[in-house]
Amino acid sequence: MNIVLDSQNGVPKTDQLVVGITRLIRSRQLLAGVKLPSIRALAAEQKISRFPVIEAYDRLSSLGLIVPKHGSGFYVASHVGADDSMPGGSDPRRAEEESNQILQQFTHPGETLKLSSGFVPEEWRDIDGIAQAVRQVMRTDPSSVVDYAMPYGDGTLRQQIQMRLGALAIEAGVENILVTSGASQALDLVVRYMLKPGDTVFVEDPAYFNLFGLLKLQGVRIVGVPRLGSGPDADFTEHLLKTIKPKLFFVNTVFHNPTGTTIAPQVAFRLLQLAQQHDFMIVEDDIFADFQATPTQRLASLDQLDHVIYIGGLSKTLSSSLRIGYLAAQGELIKRLADVKVLTSLGGSRFSESVVATLLERGTYRKYVERLRRRIGSALSTAVQHLETNGWEVFDEPAGGHFVWARAPGIEDSAILVKRAAQFDITLAPGSHFRPNGETTCWVRINTASAGDPKAIQFFEHMGTGGEH
Amino acid sequence: MNIVLDSQNGVPKTDQLVVGITRLIRSRQLLAGVKLPSIRALAAEQKISRFPVIEAYDRLSSLGLIVPKHGSGFYVASHVGADDSMPGGSDPRRAEEESNQILQQFTHPGETLKLSSGFVPEEWRDIDGIAQAVRQVMRTDPSSVVDYAMPYGDGTLRQQIQMRLGALAIEAGVENILVTSGASQALDLVVRYMLKPGDTVFVEDPAYFNLFGLLKLQGVRIVGVPRLGSGPDADFTEHLLKTIKPKLFFVNTVFHNPTGTTIAPQVAFRLLQLAQQHDFMIVEDDIFADFQATPTQRLASLDQLDHVIYIGGLSKTLSSSLRIGYLAAQGELIKRLADVKVLTSLGGSRFSESVVATLLERGTYRKYVERLRRRIGSALSTAVQHLETNGWEVFDEPAGGHFVWARAPGIEDSAILVKRAAQFDITLAPGSHFRPNGETTCWVRINTASAGDPKAIQFFEHMGTGGEH
Repeated sequence: MNIVLDSQNGVPKTDQLVVGITRLIRSRQLLAGVKLPSIRALAAEQKISRFPVIEAYDRLSSLGLIVPKHGSGFYVASHVGADDSMPGGSDPRRAEEESNQILQQFTHPGETLKLSSGFVPEEWRDIDGIAQAVRQVMRTDPSSVVDYAMPYGDGTLRQQIQMRLGALAIEAGVENILVTSGASQALDLVVRYMLKPGDTVFVEDPAYFNLFGLLKLQGVRIVGVPRLGSGPDADFTEHLLKTIKPKLFFVNTVFHNPTGTTIAPQVAFRLLQLAQQHDFMIVEDDIFADFQATPTQRLASLDQLDHVIYIGGLSKTLSSSLRIGYLAAQGELIKRLADVKVLTSLGGSRFSESVVATLLERGTYRKYVERLRRRIGSALSTAVQHLETNGWEVFDEPAGGHFVWARAPGIEDSAILVKRAAQFDITLAPGSHFRPNGETTCWVRINTASAGDPKAIQFFEHMGTGGEH
Repeated sequence: MNIVLDSQNGVPKTDQLVVGITRLIRSRQLLAGVKLPSIRALAAEQKISRFPVIEAYDRLSSLGLIVPKHGSGFYVASHVGADDSMPGGSDPRRAEEESNQILQQFTHPGETLKLSSGFVPEEWRDIDGIAQAVRQVMRTDPSSVVDYAMPYGDGTLRQQIQMRLGALAIEAGVENILVTSGASQALDLVVRYMLKPGDTVFVEDPAYFNLFGLLKLQGVRIVGVPRLGSGPDADFTEHLLKTIKPKLFFVNTVFHNPTGTTIAPQVAFRLLQLAQQHDFMIVEDDIFADFQATPTQRLASLDQLDHVIYIGGLSKTLSSSLRIGYLAAQGELIKRLADVKVLTSLGGSRFSESVVATLLERGTYRKYVERLRRRIGSALSTAVQHLETNGWEVFDEPAGGHFVWARAPGIEDSAILVKRAAQFDITLAPGSHFRPNGETTCWVRINTASAGDPKAIQFFEHMGTGGEH
């Protein structure tokens, strides 16, 4: 490789290797997908020991610049944006895989059982409750079907959201709350306002691909922090912070997507300490909050929005069609995010906001969510039982929600599992979709709400310890 | 001023001045709002004739870097983004005035008559028709209240949009059509994908402030092209193209906001020739299309989406609450814009899309729009008559729509008119809001749909030739 190490200048070899290889990748002398020399070969070429090479490859992997592939070495990551290829501000070619993954969710291949789905089944939704609220709004506030919503969102809806936050011990004023078009717009506003191309953020590894896609679209570098059962790995975060300064850290607090795990209070506390010491903000994405009966520790409830931007929404429980999400943040920040909202979208739908405000105000939503939680909880425990009795491993068994992160015995690459699932008319997504740079993994996300289907049970059995591989 | 001209290097003095002053502004040695030396003073200081200074100030004004103020000289524009001040990718501080202007539209100061409004009155909307469609969708497709819409939009809706485009002689395939959350999202996707900070675009002068705000948010430099009665000034455009290379040119074809005028076929043709010769795209914003009974020439119907991106929507006629707009563009481009849409918003509302598809399919919308056009047409001619009999001047009398661009006799700065209107309990917006850099103007936009109100008539009379100033 075209790298010249200087043994005189006092800069550690590891650092020189990281800088040199980064330069080769950014300048496109090393193209995406190219295999790097093996650790042994590079050490020999540079006449150095293998340790600095191991450490450099490790750090480059953390930076998302190179990707280790199981048993075959290191490759240049496919998502390294070179600025000269940009058609404009946001280049979707940097997030081609992620947009394809999102689009795939909308294809309907006949009778396939979608264990890969991110949603609870339509039959579990409260369509009647929504229909009633729609009729009520049409009767009491008919002009809501023609007007924009207020820039920060409907007043009643914001009060209801304030009460929801209060129940989680997040003391936000109404003026700290911004209604958005789904949690997607909330994330987008944060990314758009706070990040520019070349910035670095931390994400959990694994996490959800639409977040990766949004960040890559913006030209942001994403560094993965392992997600453990108790939350993001705080030791690893602290280690990364010695060399990398992120602007934001995106964390799923409760029923994390895809592992279904929930952050522990001591982890929340340590992350907040790190955020204060190293001056970054945590984006607490809490869109699965309502799947939880008894609230656990939120980052925003410890920190009260000092170093936390809190995001919630109702798409996962109530409806994706009504497009209601929200942001809570400090005064100055929420004002800026609201400005970006009105400049880019003018405003939301007054009708949708009124319908959701009605559902919250009348308690319809609360009663529905209680029913939904029972259904989801029972489906979850049945699924975990089916998986475990068949020898599958479930990653840190979740306390709720509709996802488990699971692996079949003897399968090292979940892509194989996806192919086998297709033979059972089951759609699965490889776990690599949930990793920042598409790294291979043995794990897959299973939507437990659909895992009671006979096809699924048969598949779990077949791929389990009793089946043939 | 800290500029050193070199009389030896062969570079014209004008160019040296433009470069030198631009540098002082960008580096913040000259801050926003600061008054530049007078033409005479700068010429004397540099020991040169006044002509290069006049030309340089002229060009800097075209570039939006400085602003001429009537009778008091030139000032550094307030919207010049210095990259180091950016918190991230999109800085709303660059568009503070525009976001305030948008927010003002949502304030409700009691009984004020809002002649500044951009909307047709609520009483003129077809709330019953929408309510019927809502009920039908709830009956025939109840699950639409919980799901995301398809990524490109509802199939029936896209077919209906295709037919609408066909009626304007724009031969787009369904695959060239992307449904968006209002025309706002359509504009935003185009800006976000095609423009990056520092890019230059042409806009019409006057035009609408939410477009300016969106562009400034993105850090884009906007250069105004005078809007004449027949469309953007093609001669001026050609002149600008000698020195400036824009990426996009944003044009309102029919019932232009704010002047109400419609592009003439020969102007459309010349603009398209220029777009081809100079390799830029025209964003044809046609959101007032349905106010027109007999279609006139569209840019996209001449060019068939080769150098045109076409944007339409139903917020201006049907409902802002349902958030339905659309984009039509070439195959590769529409794919990229769709990618940006799914990465940033996941998808639209299946419910809204079904309701609008139903209204279009059943002809409810067509019948409503026919009624609306008659009302708007009659309000327009009454308003023009009231204004003109009182000595007001109407800019190139519009053939339809609900806007006129008008001036009161003897008033040189519309800000004065706004103050006087307030004394009549009337909200007006100064015409400067509709100019790319807030330049002073004598014109104001009047919403003719509200101009039949006795308060408005009294105001027109008072400020007219018969009134006292």
